[in-house]
Amino acid sequence: MNILERIAKEVQEETKVRLHARNVERVLQALLKTGDFWKIVDYSDLPVPAASGIIKKFLDEGIVFIDENENILFTQKGLDLVKELGIEPFEEHKCRACEGRGIPFYDDKELYRTFVEIAKDRPKPVQQYDQGSVTPETTVSRVLFLDSRGDLRGKEIIVMGAEDDLTGLAIALTRKAKRVLIIDIDERLIDFDNRIIKELGIDNAEAMVWDLRNPYTEDFLGKFDVFITDPPETFAAFRAFIGRGIATLKDAGCAGYFGLTLRDSSIFRWKEFQEILINEYGVVITDIIQDFNDYMNWEYHPETRAAQIAPVKKNPTDIWYRSAWYRIETLPGFKRWNEPISDEVFYLDEEGSTT
Amino acid sequence: MNILERIAKEVQEETKVRLHARNVERVLQALLKTGDFWKIVDYSDLPVPAASGIIKKFLDEGIVFIDENENILFTQKGLDLVKELGIEPFEEHKCRACEGRGIPFYDDKELYRTFVEIAKDRPKPVQQYDQGSVTPETTVSRVLFLDSRGDLRGKEIIVMGAEDDLTGLAIALTRKAKRVLIIDIDERLIDFDNRIIKELGIDNAEAMVWDLRNPYTEDFLGKFDVFITDPPETFAAFRAFIGRGIATLKDAGCAGYFGLTLRDSSIFRWKEFQEILINEYGVVITDIIQDFNDYMNWEYHPETRAAQIAPVKKNPTDIWYRSAWYRIETLPGFKRWNEPISDEVFYLDEEGSTT
Repeated sequence: MNILERIAKEVQEETKVRLHARNVERVLQALLKTGDFWKIVDYSDLPVPAASGIIKKFLDEGIVFIDENENILFTQKGLDLVKELGIEPFEEHKCRACEGRGIPFYDDKELYRTFVEIAKDRPKPVQQYDQGSVTPETTVSRVLFLDSRGDLRGKEIIVMGAEDDLTGLAIALTRKAKRVLIIDIDERLIDFDNRIIKELGIDNAEAMVWDLRNPYTEDFLGKFDVFITDPPETFAAFRAFIGRGIATLKDAGCAGYFGLTLRDSSIFRWKEFQEILINEYGVVITDIIQDFNDYMNWEYHPETRAAQIAPVKKNPTDIWYRSAWYRIETLPGFKRWNEPISDEVFYLDEEGSTT
Repeated sequence: MNILERIAKEVQEETKVRLHARNVERVLQALLKTGDFWKIVDYSDLPVPAASGIIKKFLDEGIVFIDENENILFTQKGLDLVKELGIEPFEEHKCRACEGRGIPFYDDKELYRTFVEIAKDRPKPVQQYDQGSVTPETTVSRVLFLDSRGDLRGKEIIVMGAEDDLTGLAIALTRKAKRVLIIDIDERLIDFDNRIIKELGIDNAEAMVWDLRNPYTEDFLGKFDVFITDPPETFAAFRAFIGRGIATLKDAGCAGYFGLTLRDSSIFRWKEFQEILINEYGVVITDIIQDFNDYMNWEYHPETRAAQIAPVKKNPTDIWYRSAWYRIETLPGFKRWNEPISDEVFYLDEEGSTT
């Protein structure tokens, strides 16, 4: 067993997050580029407890040290190890025009400007509901993505939770959907959306309070062409948000959109999510765009488990929390999952830490 | 049963390509944007036999007609139908800087210029091996994608078939990999690559003739960090290219890259491919970027089944054949598939038509 395998095994035992040797290699690659812990999490695509566990192990073994500015730097032993293992850094190539999404938020400047103007008064994210808003560029890109796939004009769309991103409101602002229904557990967001919708005289959109732990009523099941959501990443939440999202769809060829991170869930869990999607729900994955969703930092960060287990006290200074944007399509025989869910482990488990 | 369902059912019976009603809706959406058959195939994301079958059915039923320039246009009956069904067009939003890939080919201008200069003398695509080259912007973007994911520098990389795209050569040109092995059935391409590699004094890359219908020898199995391929889309070819690609990988956390189209395979087949990847091979899908790969038109197009079954004789005038770019990662317990394959249905089946 080489050193990477040993460290992966030991950190897995301590954190309960599944790891393989190349996850540890990825942290070494990241350390060749930055000393900032939150950027290391970003670059290494690992759950915070795992990235933190690996850095702490490196500290114990004298592979890295932390300087007076809380930068994590290689020791001579660390540099020798990297050289011996033949590990080299990577170079991130990301389009500067579209921020790497492929979808140009700058394509609808009027929507972008209107959205930014409206969003400046939005309610602040709260920890209670695992909130953390994406950037306005992300929200507008989501809308243009829908339009590019024929999932906007003339369609009935449900936006389920995560309305701190104001994705439902942005869709309503286009006035191109046939119907927009926005649901969220947070009354502040629902009131905010309904006030704007009313002020602007948008007559095919509405927002209502709903707790996704409860099964949908017949008013929701099989009534929509498209669902959009951004779930917490426990299995319970995955089912409540995505299983129930699929349950709202009318028939084959309907689409679902959602974010999944590698910050609050591991690549091992991604495989399990993909098994549920394909084998159990009977849908096909049409798109996975990494780092599509950029999340602004949230004020409650110092209160999160992520901040508490980090090897440094320094807060993030830039965007570090990103998620991939999934699009799925239903196929004939797809399954509508709609069971009740208890609120145990709804927001947090061994891989999650940012709530 | 509405008209879309009926047409989907009838065209499925005639073409043997699986279809649902929203596939037919998508062709109507496309017809609201263009009268060019090859653009309709592009926009509707359907196998050519299915798109062609749907257009022919529309012709039979007086929903569209073909004008003297071979444009496909709605009749009044067709316009009434679209209005009655509430079908609206979509608007494609694609970043102009990176051509929608998110990865900026313009980021490494030296590589791009060198590649374009070298590629102008490349062997022409031949029908015998299902060849059709991607644009230079696509090939360079593939290389930069690898680099962004830590799959280039210091890595051992195998590029399997589809070297008419010169992806292996482009990787070799960076001189950043530890080792590049290029295999292809076409001796012309192998000779071309080896000549350039020798002329430029690149000492860690080689190209060799190999027929992927044959199982790999021990020299290949478990020897690489990354594989790249672009298979024909029969099940036999999927296994020969991708199953065998996975078999070349060393351990967990290694990566595979490949293109899959919705031009030569249906979304139904995509689900079956995803089942094989996840359930049988034990890998996880990390990226699916639609329309990442743009293919230049091939001279043998008039000889293809696609051209013969098209409802118009007019050849494509612009890029219409695109594929999604998949990235997968191995996880512990992944399976190395390496069986022999017969050459029956290797290139063509009911959904394929461009060979």
